[in-house]
Amino acid sequence: MDKILRINMSADGGPKASTGSIGAYAGLGGRAMTSAIVAKEVPPLCHPLSAENKLIIAPGLLSGSLAAMSGRISVGCKSPLTGGIKEANSGGQAAQVLGRLGYAAIVLEGAPKSETIYKVFINKSGVKISADNSLKMLGNYDLIEKMKKEYGDKISCISIGPAGEMKLSAASVAFTDMELRPTRHAGRGGVGAVMGAKGVKVIVLDDTGMPNREPKNPEKFKEANKNFVQGLKKHPVTGEGLPAFGTNVLTNVINEAGGFPTNNFKMGRFAGASKISGETQASTESARGGIVTHGCHRGCVIRCSGVYNDKDGNFLTKQPEYETVWAHGANCGIDDLDAIAMMDRLDDDYGIDTIEMGATIAVAMDAGLAKFGDAKAAINLVKEVGKGTHLGRILGNGAAVTGKVFGVERVPVVKGQSMPAYDPRAVQGMGVTYATTTMGADHTAGYAVTANILGVGGKVDALKPEGQIELSRNLQIATAAIDSTGMCLFIAFAILDQPDTFQALLDLLGGFSGANLTGDDVVALGKSVLKNEREFNIQAGFTSKHDRLPDYFKNEPLPPHNVTFAVKDEDLDKVFNW
Amino acid sequence: MDKILRINMSADGGPKASTGSIGAYAGLGGRAMTSAIVAKEVPPLCHPLSAENKLIIAPGLLSGSLAAMSGRISVGCKSPLTGGIKEANSGGQAAQVLGRLGYAAIVLEGAPKSETIYKVFINKSGVKISADNSLKMLGNYDLIEKMKKEYGDKISCISIGPAGEMKLSAASVAFTDMELRPTRHAGRGGVGAVMGAKGVKVIVLDDTGMPNREPKNPEKFKEANKNFVQGLKKHPVTGEGLPAFGTNVLTNVINEAGGFPTNNFKMGRFAGASKISGETQASTESARGGIVTHGCHRGCVIRCSGVYNDKDGNFLTKQPEYETVWAHGANCGIDDLDAIAMMDRLDDDYGIDTIEMGATIAVAMDAGLAKFGDAKAAINLVKEVGKGTHLGRILGNGAAVTGKVFGVERVPVVKGQSMPAYDPRAVQGMGVTYATTTMGADHTAGYAVTANILGVGGKVDALKPEGQIELSRNLQIATAAIDSTGMCLFIAFAILDQPDTFQALLDLLGGFSGANLTGDDVVALGKSVLKNEREFNIQAGFTSKHDRLPDYFKNEPLPPHNVTFAVKDEDLDKVFNW
Repeated sequence: MDKILRINMSADGGPKASTGSIGAYAGLGGRAMTSAIVAKEVPPLCHPLSAENKLIIAPGLLSGSLAAMSGRISVGCKSPLTGGIKEANSGGQAAQVLGRLGYAAIVLEGAPKSETIYKVFINKSGVKISADNSLKMLGNYDLIEKMKKEYGDKISCISIGPAGEMKLSAASVAFTDMELRPTRHAGRGGVGAVMGAKGVKVIVLDDTGMPNREPKNPEKFKEANKNFVQGLKKHPVTGEGLPAFGTNVLTNVINEAGGFPTNNFKMGRFAGASKISGETQASTESARGGIVTHGCHRGCVIRCSGVYNDKDGNFLTKQPEYETVWAHGANCGIDDLDAIAMMDRLDDDYGIDTIEMGATIAVAMDAGLAKFGDAKAAINLVKEVGKGTHLGRILGNGAAVTGKVFGVERVPVVKGQSMPAYDPRAVQGMGVTYATTTMGADHTAGYAVTANILGVGGKVDALKPEGQIELSRNLQIATAAIDSTGMCLFIAFAILDQPDTFQALLDLLGGFSGANLTGDDVVALGKSVLKNEREFNIQAGFTSKHDRLPDYFKNEPLPPHNVTFAVKDEDLDKVFNW
Repeated sequence: MDKILRINMSADGGPKASTGSIGAYAGLGGRAMTSAIVAKEVPPLCHPLSAENKLIIAPGLLSGSLAAMSGRISVGCKSPLTGGIKEANSGGQAAQVLGRLGYAAIVLEGAPKSETIYKVFINKSGVKISADNSLKMLGNYDLIEKMKKEYGDKISCISIGPAGEMKLSAASVAFTDMELRPTRHAGRGGVGAVMGAKGVKVIVLDDTGMPNREPKNPEKFKEANKNFVQGLKKHPVTGEGLPAFGTNVLTNVINEAGGFPTNNFKMGRFAGASKISGETQASTESARGGIVTHGCHRGCVIRCSGVYNDKDGNFLTKQPEYETVWAHGANCGIDDLDAIAMMDRLDDDYGIDTIEMGATIAVAMDAGLAKFGDAKAAINLVKEVGKGTHLGRILGNGAAVTGKVFGVERVPVVKGQSMPAYDPRAVQGMGVTYATTTMGADHTAGYAVTANILGVGGKVDALKPEGQIELSRNLQIATAAIDSTGMCLFIAFAILDQPDTFQALLDLLGGFSGANLTGDDVVALGKSVLKNEREFNIQAGFTSKHDRLPDYFKNEPLPPHNVTFAVKDEDLDKVFNW
């Protein structure tokens, strides 16, 4: 991981790969890497689809090592959805494979001079780029089947579906999982559209013959890894809830808390919640021969992933995540798990963010394009995206564009990105994160559900403004650091609650790099990432006025608690005062 | 003109009109009035389609008097197109009629509680508001015919077409001309969408029985008016060019200068220019029994308007303006005047901005939806808007949304609003205005074509950055003042070149109000308007980063002069340093 691969799509005679030293970016991984390159190399006012934007794919600091949970990968660019900096994060196999291949980042630069699309193959011998227009407009599933035929089944893939090729602002970048299915996505912010604008359909990785990355201090590393895994196993969220029911364990929890946005954020509880809960999902999966407890990448010990089979017992999609179940479910008034799973499958195949799609369909429902609760109509709306119809292109550009096109006033976005599955009125700490993160409304940027709802890392009343700023600030800093390690963010539950697990993480990082890391170093890392990102956004034209929720969250009380978002504007402006 | 009519669309039991004193807004007219009310009463972060936005319609300070050229009207709100403050300006009869009826402004507030649409009738007896769903989705032409049947032909109307009802961001507000046709439009920035969001389809005005507004100093006023008219008559632009060929006199001029944006701003000269020039247009109109020289409102002495008949000699539309001929013509590679006139008619009927529509169709052509030069396809694209299809809704939301939906990178907008008919590379002073005006790309905000191309008000080399900042600054200040008087902006040609005509304007204003006005007062008025507008935009989240042209104008040389926009960013930031 001491080299960076740059592919210049503008080069005369076709795309040109060059591998260089990591240079000034040494010591960075994941989000720290993508955000540093974007901040340093991308003109903040460039068009996100222009040759001047760059797409950066970076494994984490520990990716490719034997550290547990180190298989997350970051995709960064200037976002076509928000117009600001973007880091979208995914599981899957690519982080570990890229790490073993020795790449700290792949940077796609420039723009192709024709409509030709390209595939990139990377193995221990180097990089090969080929034009391949036979891949045009393939769904991710067909694409991966084709790659398997061509390159065998030891590969892992990074790809876009038709949505990315159409440069839709909600397009994702897909990563294959351990079964070589394109089920893990860097979903948010339209990173797939930027890959589409670069003309790259798929990057195929094969790490055959490459060893794991070795720690500088093997003893310390090994011991730390053991303690780290034990810590994850003993925490109720990472050791019990997530493995048993996946992320969808949250449906009942958030619904009970009254923060489960229903019918385009009109209510905080959904009558059909129990039909789509993680508990129901798990028993459905078990009954159909699916898998309830499964890792999305090698080295995962939480194993919150799974397999969702259709009624006939055939693979339909990976176990839909909580945010997907919410987006395509409650937020559209839909209580049919099979319909939700079908939309998850379609989203993955087209290469589009499930959160943005669900939020968009709910806005379309408010515009009268379908009725809340009509699962069939919702599926058809998703299919429009795959077909690339005019309606599909509208929807594929997300909730903000859809609201504008159809004249809808109530559109739950911040910086153009849809809010996820936690109503900011009933989970006010999330509201602070939505409003202030550099990413546009994003739950992962500072997951205040921890102290607001789950009682993890302390307790802050979810319905009141007090304490939310500090909570969100600390979580945003910690998250930016974790997103740079390549660690799955879910380790946060354990490290927030268990000082010894946090120490194990520090020792893992320190054992690997040979340095002696402290908590202060982690905080400093997180702050430096946020500082890069904020500075980019300021140069791109963002001000404190963009760090706000839409007005109606302040004026329209949310049942059942009948609360409004009560954190003051002047307090939101203090999140980054540290 | 000492009262303000407010119509609260949110009132219990249906919309409620109340007439109040002008109060704190005394002494303001036109743009000074609309921008003051928006800045003071509209929350800068509100959704433009929300109940919190207001639509303000204000005649100028001299409207309703016998002052020549005083028939312009301003429509203001927070713009759905730009997200910033908006003043869109129109000719037609309404300014004079509203002035005589005594209203300094009509303010539409709140939002209706149902889908019902309303008509408002105002005469000397007062205001009557009625629900009338029979008007739904009528084009402006049919609507006005209906109003004539209902209220007779002494009326003048302010209305929206289907585009406004659909709340499309490029929707206009139509004003009837002297022949009671809906041909004059407050076109820019989506003001029609805000009127649509208020649920008001049409405001019918009847000033029967109301006298002209009387000047405080009749002798001074009369003398000044005489001198003013003489000054307009003797200037070559206002006395010869505009009356003879209308605004389209510019096609040959701007094309010759190499600043006539062709095929979506790819070239500065159009091979078919002579076929669509003002000269060709005038002879075509004459040959078909149309009208070449005609005023758009009573009291106009420049008379740059006209009537365009079809091949059979039947009225098709008013004489298309230069910017329309450019937008639907050269910018789409179309050299067919009849096709352009047909699109002008459709735009007026649907109630949509001709500039935004033409610019949008050119972007759609770059997206592959039609070929440059295909007039039939372009007409069909305009018709999509009228039909309200998904494609029509995309296009009706303007070039920025269309570019986003179809993944087009080259989109010539500033603050979300399309550039008009002057390429900022070949007319660099216009580039400064496009970049920095509060309005989004807008030629009327500071018409640097004067000194850049026409040699009016001095001479500044159009192809070089030197002197453009000061030129644009002074024009923006002067324009904001003129837009507040109710005077047609075209008086600027004469008052910039002829000190005695400028003095006549000051005497007209002074003779009317009884005050003694100086040039400094006009400058102070202009600055105060711009200050209000800038402050609103800052509170709405705009920064200097939004005062920029898209990058490609800086990188892509424009034939035939092969120049790029060369005004430096740091100089753009000095426009409002005065």
